[in-house]
Amino acid sequence: MADVSKRHAYLLDESDLPTTWYNVIPDLPSPPPPPLHPGTHEPVGPDDLAPLFPMDLIMQEVSQDSYVEIPGDVLEVYRQWRPSPLYRAHRLEKALGTPARIYYKYEGVSPAGSHKPNTAVPQAYYNAKAGTKKLTTETGAGQWGTALALACAWYDLECEVWQVGASYDQKPYRRMMIEAFGAKVHRSPSNLTDAGRALLAENANHTGSLGIAISEAVEVAAKDPNTRYALGSVLNHVLMHQTVIGEEALMQLKMAGDTPDLIVGCTGGGSNFAGLSFPFLREKLAGRMSPDILAVEPASCPSLTKGVYAYDFGDTAGMTPLLKMHTLGHNFIPDPIHAGGLRYHGMAPLISHVYELGLMDAVAIPQKECFAAAVLFARTEGILPAPEPTHALAATIREALRCKETGEEKVILTALCGHGHFDLASYDSYLSGNMVDLEFDEARLAAGLAGIPTV
Amino acid sequence: MADVSKRHAYLLDESDLPTTWYNVIPDLPSPPPPPLHPGTHEPVGPDDLAPLFPMDLIMQEVSQDSYVEIPGDVLEVYRQWRPSPLYRAHRLEKALGTPARIYYKYEGVSPAGSHKPNTAVPQAYYNAKAGTKKLTTETGAGQWGTALALACAWYDLECEVWQVGASYDQKPYRRMMIEAFGAKVHRSPSNLTDAGRALLAENANHTGSLGIAISEAVEVAAKDPNTRYALGSVLNHVLMHQTVIGEEALMQLKMAGDTPDLIVGCTGGGSNFAGLSFPFLREKLAGRMSPDILAVEPASCPSLTKGVYAYDFGDTAGMTPLLKMHTLGHNFIPDPIHAGGLRYHGMAPLISHVYELGLMDAVAIPQKECFAAAVLFARTEGILPAPEPTHALAATIREALRCKETGEEKVILTALCGHGHFDLASYDSYLSGNMVDLEFDEARLAAGLAGIPTV
Repeated sequence: MADVSKRHAYLLDESDLPTTWYNVIPDLPSPPPPPLHPGTHEPVGPDDLAPLFPMDLIMQEVSQDSYVEIPGDVLEVYRQWRPSPLYRAHRLEKALGTPARIYYKYEGVSPAGSHKPNTAVPQAYYNAKAGTKKLTTETGAGQWGTALALACAWYDLECEVWQVGASYDQKPYRRMMIEAFGAKVHRSPSNLTDAGRALLAENANHTGSLGIAISEAVEVAAKDPNTRYALGSVLNHVLMHQTVIGEEALMQLKMAGDTPDLIVGCTGGGSNFAGLSFPFLREKLAGRMSPDILAVEPASCPSLTKGVYAYDFGDTAGMTPLLKMHTLGHNFIPDPIHAGGLRYHGMAPLISHVYELGLMDAVAIPQKECFAAAVLFARTEGILPAPEPTHALAATIREALRCKETGEEKVILTALCGHGHFDLASYDSYLSGNMVDLEFDEARLAAGLAGIPTV
Repeated sequence: MADVSKRHAYLLDESDLPTTWYNVIPDLPSPPPPPLHPGTHEPVGPDDLAPLFPMDLIMQEVSQDSYVEIPGDVLEVYRQWRPSPLYRAHRLEKALGTPARIYYKYEGVSPAGSHKPNTAVPQAYYNAKAGTKKLTTETGAGQWGTALALACAWYDLECEVWQVGASYDQKPYRRMMIEAFGAKVHRSPSNLTDAGRALLAENANHTGSLGIAISEAVEVAAKDPNTRYALGSVLNHVLMHQTVIGEEALMQLKMAGDTPDLIVGCTGGGSNFAGLSFPFLREKLAGRMSPDILAVEPASCPSLTKGVYAYDFGDTAGMTPLLKMHTLGHNFIPDPIHAGGLRYHGMAPLISHVYELGLMDAVAIPQKECFAAAVLFARTEGILPAPEPTHALAATIREALRCKETGEEKVILTALCGHGHFDLASYDSYLSGNMVDLEFDEARLAAGLAGIPTV
């Protein structure tokens, strides 16, 4: 029987919606290293980025302000699903028999089903304001492509999405959803770009990667003055847009009368993780609380735990600025795990910097443990997680079981950044016993690291 | 640009969650005709239903009380997603250029993605309380099977689901989701029941129907004293559990300062429609408001608009009590439209009675118009509707466009009873131009009507 006495959902009124995004940079003990021009290796300036992004977003990318005001128009769109709920996982706690108190911030309530609209909407807004006619982007599993397609529909922008070939083939429903929102979807690598054609010439059935899809979308945007590019993670402004998650969670934990001991999020490019944790990092740096902050990455794409901290390209073709980040090498292609959103060779430069500063930890977890956590979570909490946040759930469960041993009543906060309605083939694979954890390929990693440019 | 000045979401606090379900029967000018025993043709008593349902639900089925208290345990589960949001469709209104004000009550926020958990949870609760070990049920598109699987996981009940063969084959993700929640799914007709084996003997590839799947689930439950049966629509107690939708919508429209002129819902078995409209019908019967109430059914399965009002079986094999309802005949198999949840030969007896009393209207709409409405809705409101509520949306848009002609500022309330995340093949079929509206087969209807028993 469910327990009558305990509150499950902590909901905020729409008047509590944060009106500013939080920029962690001014609060850090040192600033992150700047992006470098791929040709000159000099720090890039706003003008270098102007072919790809509208100036409002470039100014946010380099902002030294702690807070940036959210435009009223964006707030109005946010209000459709924000503030998002914070849930206490009573039924999961009970199933684990843990004294830990587990909270999860659920972003699957957004119309696109993930945290991605938090940045897709302002990116579309600022582009529309600047007169952009079309946005291009990449997508892996499809969460980002869905969010941007929808945001473009709302702001009357055309939208073209390059979807990683493997996901395009495996998850047709995501393509269909992006198309239902009115965007065009191309299987990447495509014959529409130089970058794509070069790869297809090598291998006509190339299954692609996020780095390749980025190269294609960037190439198309760079060539057309009416077209700009939108990135779903990695960059400072994208991470900043996601901080509404953590700002709300701060208020909601206060409602619950709890202070977090541990904050856990999954990391691909890092936007969901940063969105949840940076507002808490601010509190930690100010001495108002002292949570441990833990990033969880897939064992098959461990940029923080097995990568190097170096300047590398954000894409495979080497067209983007050089970013100082934890990277497996821009040519590294991870195994085709189901968490397509975590299959990126690098980590957000800002998260890499925070990691180097020793302000957070990281761990890599293999896929099967993540799906075991996901099934337990689904059957207790009732929400089917996307493969990406199952990594954070697996780490949460590890810690909750440790608390069971020690008796610690730790308060754990995690981010359930999206639902898994389009990932059921993954669940089927797990439940039917067909999922395998491939051994990590050290030789492939060595080759990836060897491809990192010398700066 | 989205409009900053207008409120999109009307949200209630969890303290506003209704604590009673509403039973419309005592407020009607005459009571609905009773169900009859299939053998004796005498009214069935509670004991006749005991092999299938726990006594608490049987008492609700025959209740003459206007309100039934919602158990605290059920309220606690409801609070995960209830009160559900009421949205004002500003962006859709703008796209239509209508002076009408369109509101939609969105039930897709539930963990199963539809209104179905509103009754699955209490049904599982009362069964667990009565010592039931296993529940059987049927499902078409899978919304009901998903909801019951989840409710059974929460109350430690086994769950076995017979899914209509056509949907089982076309929508594997729904099966996988039901399995992820821990239930067993059988393709119907199956070789596990007499009813199924008889049909497979005629046609080894039989694609099934809701009526057949009900026969199978009822047969299995009736044979095992520890197993009971759960129905996702049609019966009085199921409709009553759904009235939380309308009770909340009443409060939310009050927040918005509006009184509805028209209430529109889709009808399959009728539970979503009744859940939205019966609380408003109470207000109408009491003279406190005067909305028109409109049921929308698919042109290919038009029980209200082309059926007869007669006693008929709820299932295909003729095992259920005889129900006085609008029916196309229990042997009628509708065309395989994508709205699997609306492919039922009959209508809830209580809705049929209300329709006969002249308290509501009905209209049938073909599939392509519904999907055109769905795509416009998705691109404006951002939510991808399930194929079932697209029928209500199509009727809403018809009325909103009529208001555009006349200048009427009508207030329209509709029910968006679920999301379409598992129905994207339908959208793909529509967007690629492959969807066709089959002509209604009058000969098949005549054969269906001829199969209705003489009572």
